[in-house]
Amino acid sequence: MDFSHSAKARDYLQRTQAFMNDKVLPAEEQYYQALSTSADHNDWQQPAIVEELKAQARSEGLWNMFLPCEEWGAGLTNAEYAPIAEANGWSLMAPEVFNCNAPDTGNSEVLWKYGSEEQKEQWLKPLLAGEIRSAFCMTEPDVASSDATNMEATCIVEGDEIVLNGRKWWSSGIGHPNCKFAIFMGISNPDADRHHRHAMVLVPLDTPGIKIERMLSVMGDYDAPFGHGEVSFTDVRLPLSAFIGGPGRGFEIAQGRLGPGRIHHCMRLIGSAEKALKLLCERGMTRTAFGKPLVKLNGNPDVIANARIGIEQARLLTLKAAWLMDTKGIMGAMSEVSQIKVVAPNVAQQIIDAAIQIHGGGGLSDDFPLTRMLAMARVLRLADGPDEVHRGLIAKFELMKYRHLAQKKG
Amino acid sequence: MDFSHSAKARDYLQRTQAFMNDKVLPAEEQYYQALSTSADHNDWQQPAIVEELKAQARSEGLWNMFLPCEEWGAGLTNAEYAPIAEANGWSLMAPEVFNCNAPDTGNSEVLWKYGSEEQKEQWLKPLLAGEIRSAFCMTEPDVASSDATNMEATCIVEGDEIVLNGRKWWSSGIGHPNCKFAIFMGISNPDADRHHRHAMVLVPLDTPGIKIERMLSVMGDYDAPFGHGEVSFTDVRLPLSAFIGGPGRGFEIAQGRLGPGRIHHCMRLIGSAEKALKLLCERGMTRTAFGKPLVKLNGNPDVIANARIGIEQARLLTLKAAWLMDTKGIMGAMSEVSQIKVVAPNVAQQIIDAAIQIHGGGGLSDDFPLTRMLAMARVLRLADGPDEVHRGLIAKFELMKYRHLAQKKG
Amino acid sequence: MDFSHSAKARDYLQRTQAFMNDKVLPAEEQYYQALSTSADHNDWQQPAIVEELKAQARSEGLWNMFLPCEEWGAGLTNAEYAPIAEANGWSLMAPEVFNCNAPDTGNSEVLWKYGSEEQKEQWLKPLLAGEIRSAFCMTEPDVASSDATNMEATCIVEGDEIVLNGRKWWSSGIGHPNCKFAIFMGISNPDADRHHRHAMVLVPLDTPGIKIERMLSVMGDYDAPFGHGEVSFTDVRLPLSAFIGGPGRGFEIAQGRLGPGRIHHCMRLIGSAEKALKLLCERGMTRTAFGKPLVKLNGNPDVIANARIGIEQARLLTLKAAWLMDTKGIMGAMSEVSQIKVVAPNVAQQIIDAAIQIHGGGGLSDDFPLTRMLAMARVLRLADGPDEVHRGLIAKFELMKYRHLAQKKG
Amino acid sequence: MDFSHSAKARDYLQRTQAFMNDKVLPAEEQYYQALSTSADHNDWQQPAIVEELKAQARSEGLWNMFLPCEEWGAGLTNAEYAPIAEANGWSLMAPEVFNCNAPDTGNSEVLWKYGSEEQKEQWLKPLLAGEIRSAFCMTEPDVASSDATNMEATCIVEGDEIVLNGRKWWSSGIGHPNCKFAIFMGISNPDADRHHRHAMVLVPLDTPGIKIERMLSVMGDYDAPFGHGEVSFTDVRLPLSAFIGGPGRGFEIAQGRLGPGRIHHCMRLIGSAEKALKLLCERGMTRTAFGKPLVKLNGNPDVIANARIGIEQARLLTLKAAWLMDTKGIMGAMSEVSQIKVVAPNVAQQIIDAAIQIHGGGGLSDDFPLTRMLAMARVLRLADGPDEVHRGLIAKFELMKYRHLAQKKG
Repeated sequence: MDFSHSAKARDYLQRTQAFMNDKVLPAEEQYYQALSTSADHNDWQQPAIVEELKAQARSEGLWNMFLPCEEWGAGLTNAEYAPIAEANGWSLMAPEVFNCNAPDTGNSEVLWKYGSEEQKEQWLKPLLAGEIRSAFCMTEPDVASSDATNMEATCIVEGDEIVLNGRKWWSSGIGHPNCKFAIFMGISNPDADRHHRHAMVLVPLDTPGIKIERMLSVMGDYDAPFGHGEVSFTDVRLPLSAFIGGPGRGFEIAQGRLGPGRIHHCMRLIGSAEKALKLLCERGMTRTAFGKPLVKLNGNPDVIANARIGIEQARLLTLKAAWLMDTKGIMGAMSEVSQIKVVAPNVAQQIIDAAIQIHGGGGLSDDFPLTRMLAMARVLRLADGPDEVHRGLIAKFELMKYRHLAQKKG
Repeated sequence: MDFSHSAKARDYLQRTQAFMNDKVLPAEEQYYQALSTSADHNDWQQPAIVEELKAQARSEGLWNMFLPCEEWGAGLTNAEYAPIAEANGWSLMAPEVFNCNAPDTGNSEVLWKYGSEEQKEQWLKPLLAGEIRSAFCMTEPDVASSDATNMEATCIVEGDEIVLNGRKWWSSGIGHPNCKFAIFMGISNPDADRHHRHAMVLVPLDTPGIKIERMLSVMGDYDAPFGHGEVSFTDVRLPLSAFIGGPGRGFEIAQGRLGPGRIHHCMRLIGSAEKALKLLCERGMTRTAFGKPLVKLNGNPDVIANARIGIEQARLLTLKAAWLMDTKGIMGAMSEVSQIKVVAPNVAQQIIDAAIQIHGGGGLSDDFPLTRMLAMARVLRLADGPDEVHRGLIAKFELMKYRHLAQKKG
Repeated sequence: MDFSHSAKARDYLQRTQAFMNDKVLPAEEQYYQALSTSADHNDWQQPAIVEELKAQARSEGLWNMFLPCEEWGAGLTNAEYAPIAEANGWSLMAPEVFNCNAPDTGNSEVLWKYGSEEQKEQWLKPLLAGEIRSAFCMTEPDVASSDATNMEATCIVEGDEIVLNGRKWWSSGIGHPNCKFAIFMGISNPDADRHHRHAMVLVPLDTPGIKIERMLSVMGDYDAPFGHGEVSFTDVRLPLSAFIGGPGRGFEIAQGRLGPGRIHHCMRLIGSAEKALKLLCERGMTRTAFGKPLVKLNGNPDVIANARIGIEQARLLTLKAAWLMDTKGIMGAMSEVSQIKVVAPNVAQQIIDAAIQIHGGGGLSDDFPLTRMLAMARVLRLADGPDEVHRGLIAKFELMKYRHLAQKKG
Repeated sequence: MDFSHSAKARDYLQRTQAFMNDKVLPAEEQYYQALSTSADHNDWQQPAIVEELKAQARSEGLWNMFLPCEEWGAGLTNAEYAPIAEANGWSLMAPEVFNCNAPDTGNSEVLWKYGSEEQKEQWLKPLLAGEIRSAFCMTEPDVASSDATNMEATCIVEGDEIVLNGRKWWSSGIGHPNCKFAIFMGISNPDADRHHRHAMVLVPLDTPGIKIERMLSVMGDYDAPFGHGEVSFTDVRLPLSAFIGGPGRGFEIAQGRLGPGRIHHCMRLIGSAEKALKLLCERGMTRTAFGKPLVKLNGNPDVIANARIGIEQARLLTLKAAWLMDTKGIMGAMSEVSQIKVVAPNVAQQIIDAAIQIHGGGGLSDDFPLTRMLAMARVLRLADGPDEVHRGLIAKFELMKYRHLAQKKG
């Protein structure tokens, strides 16, 4: 039992924290001013400051830290990368600066593990170099995507081509000026069982038949320059080499993809919750009502105590999940990954909400970053599986211990 | 004990509901398309549809229903108006259509009860005619406004003039093209005790020295065409007749103003919660995951049951508070008004959040009205007194029953 | 909309409250000292004080107030009786004193509505005279009784006899020295559909074949002199006249029986919650820590405020359910009755738990009545249907509004 | 970051678990049957089975595992002992079997660290041999003991004697037939500052002037053969050598004493919560309602998922606190110890309550161990500091990070 980080993790963490404090956080105001609020992604531009910071981060080796592979990334384990993801969680612009932003991270992992040499050369290299961005096209507007087997889009082999058809939404990142390809998930083998019916396909975005129909807002924000696209695919034709790993392997790949991604999201949310608690305490120490600083009024100490407890517990559970993934593989961490996916967004949402409350009206305005942070936490109670699905999985894993008690139906 | 509405209330309610269903709700899309998203209120316009609907509502007598006075309003009691406010709560554009929108309602009540004949003639009449709009300038950016005695702006008598100085924010409605005056609250009698130090002053917005510094966003939305202004007052000079009720009476007037207003807000939130529950059920009945409609999956029936219970209880408590206000006056309803102010926004926030959850990603987008509804509920956990202050008041009222047990300090 | 009680209700309420304060509450210590803690109900005796108080209550007309019938009871409506039940809720010994204790109340209603003249004469009369007590034998140890259709005990007609077989438990009141009969529910028509398969049978307890196997404890307490029996029925033979209302009508009768009973339970719990809040405030006003009375420390004012809100809401909802039952019948109050059955026990449990907390260790001891009150509240989250079943019913009623949206299965 | 237990911890844990499963759990029925339910501790006896199991545990080296000292105990660190305490938490009789029961553990630690050689020889040796038991006399009936500085009992030096006066309660263990001494805490230095005013004194229970006034029940149970005594001390005279560590050091010693004790309690509660979850799942798998096993009905999978999440988080946080105590000392674990003291009892109380709910009425009876487990969890929301005090401490530690922002009072 040892709760301390490895020397390697501590080194990366300290350098990342210093970079965050010295460069990223001070750049936030400039970043947000450069962002478009337009609903039309054609108006969006990458803020220059991001490319500057990316170059610096890369030169300092704070780059692709998420990839547990020495050749392509920093070679940190999940448990070692986790605290760095938390540090990144203090700024919504940070993940791109360190080339550790979703969905590029998940897409990189997929290509690293399952991609062909050609796919790696053509797409993974520039992605890990930060030269291009990518999207992931999975959920669909016409079905409840909480059940992934509902997916209806198709990627059917016709002769020596794959033909894509269907409509996707919440294709995050697809509005980015640098976004060049997407990973598309759809039905490749309609007659197979429900977990071997889908495939992942690498789709260059300039392929004919792809149309970004519109950008979707999240709590009123279009999240430029990334954005969340609704995208139609109409007879999009690709060579067979566009399959990742081959037809029918979509769920297998998705499962491997989502484990680390959920840990990244959860750790960033913990960073966000820590920031919210800091803002709460600072505001509450410096504002006075009824003769006392707000932090001492009525239930506010309880709010602070509960926030601290919630953060500590969520962090430990996420680190445990990461450690399990490192030591027992994704299958050995299934319940824990679902557990953190329930815990971290809810804890973050509650603490950010509490911080808004102590800020009064100001907390709801753009004078503070709280509502943006709230939107991110709220999204993550849905993205990568809603709370309800994860709770269902946790119960299922728990009850497997008692399956010998299941009653025969008569 | 009789839980049925009076015949008069039923008549107004049925006509209001019909008007909502036939005219207001179908106009929402047109309304939202006409709204500016600009941060600069000079770009804002009143959507034509609102004036059309106002004219129709007025011609049908569905007008100023909030004012419990037969001469100036519909003459409904608070308990009779409450269900009508709930009906209005189904659309964020409805209150203005029926000339029942904050802060005009509260300002009208203040002028009706405390205004001079001249003030009534010049300002109340056009306000109740829907020709002009108004604002209320109370909270300040530099202090914790949860403690109203923190207020620092001044309205000092100098000779035969009142001189206003200070900075206000969250002056809601001040961005409206039709907004012509504000009620300003500030220190008039700096040497009086803390509850007799303030006054309310009627300020025409074209008086020199008033400057709208900027509009504040609420969860990213500027709420055009009303808006929430940050406003500076620099040596704004007004005649003594601009006092409402006279110097030193600010708190007395504020208390009377806020009681009915809180009931209106709470009933509208209950309408909003009912709408959210309806959307939740409709979406959940028509989407399927894991072989079942969402409403039957795992804990979703509990979500629905808890929502129904929450709404029923919040409504009954708000009606009781309205009835107490009608039968025992504002002083006889103090605890209950604080109770509903805690309950209704929290119930609404939870149910709207649950509705978002069952809508999946779509629930966070502008495809549904849920995030706008959420913002309104969230605001009302702060506006008109944060939850914390109201809980403190409720406890204070409760403990007054036991004050004979208070220990003498040695 | 009128939240005041009728003159008749006010009169009964004031006299009941006076009787409670002057006679019942002062007698509690004597009562509890007279109670046996033995697990063997043969050791139990009716405390003399109860019979004395019963005689007084009866002579003052505070007797059978639960029965909405002028001939047999006080003729109060459910809404009129509700506040009286709340008053009784301040003492666990009160219901028997006023001859308003479960399950005698429910059994009386059943006999009043469905009993034969002979049954009324022989059993209802002495029951309403307080001369005998009764039990209700419904739930069974071998099945999940939350689903009443699981019931397996039988009451089959053989020739001119009914033959009872099966094992029941939680037969409350069966240990009372005065308990003379039970109403037994079992399968009379095994081939009928699941809601017309059961019957209710009136069983004198001295009939051969009935054996009280043991008494069950509730949180360690055997609840003398009433008790909760596990009872076996082995070839218990009764004349056909022992059916109440006839075979196959068990569920129909049960439904009518449970509506008012649930309202009584809920109102008594509200009385219990009020008492707990009073104890909480009194203790908290008179104990000091860290230089302040406990009621002013940290989150304690919030605890008090939330308790007040919880009680007010639960009471209003219960009164509304009672009013609906009076004005629309049991079918018009189904959802509301389930709602209060969820709300009241949970609110009471929480407030009693909070009161224990503020009493410190003492709150868990017999120096205060809190743990007994807690046990009663906790029981009622299970008795008469667990929370889960009622939430399920509420959701079902809610979703019936949207049944037109149900998707056809393909 | 390594979440695995040390080899030494694993060895002890496996042997403890085997002993629990093979010997302790099967003996529980016999144990409970041997216990008296009398309120008079003079009727109590040590069940023979306990002494048998103690002898076996001792012979297998599963003895005094709590004491992080190789000479007197097993020499396990806090982090190593923690999982063993969890294993013990599956049975309320287990701690005594392994000689690891409170308050003997805390008293042993105090004597080990602060006791004189004479005290160790005379009292610590037989205590660690399991030959005698001990009590801890701290809280007092007349003051709010949540603020330990309220303590009023005295232990004043008069000449060459210490004279004890005062009244203590919740002196747990004092009813045990083998209880031979108590550690008494009281005011020794009335003129010192509030944290140096108290002392701990070792009091043989046969000293004249000590009277056990009565035993206190906990949720109706007297907890024989340990019990919770109310004890009066009237001019109890002891030699000066009875001080532990000397006058004025009471708080210093108490702080060191409570840290490990809280970790033990929390880990045992986690064991109790695991057991409750197991019982919940087993019952829910084998009972059917509405055509499904209970574990699949409505919100029950969520209950299971939330229980699993709650346990995992509480365990990790407690292990972290233990690790901090081992690596940074009690001062480096202050906030975390308070955090677990809030979390573990609440998590256990909720899960046990949920298990009761799924057991239906049976869960409240003595057919299952759940209500006894509930009482233990509930007690620990008060014992060793109520939730409220610990939340206050956690907030205080958090706000120390921001003390530079504290505003000067004018």
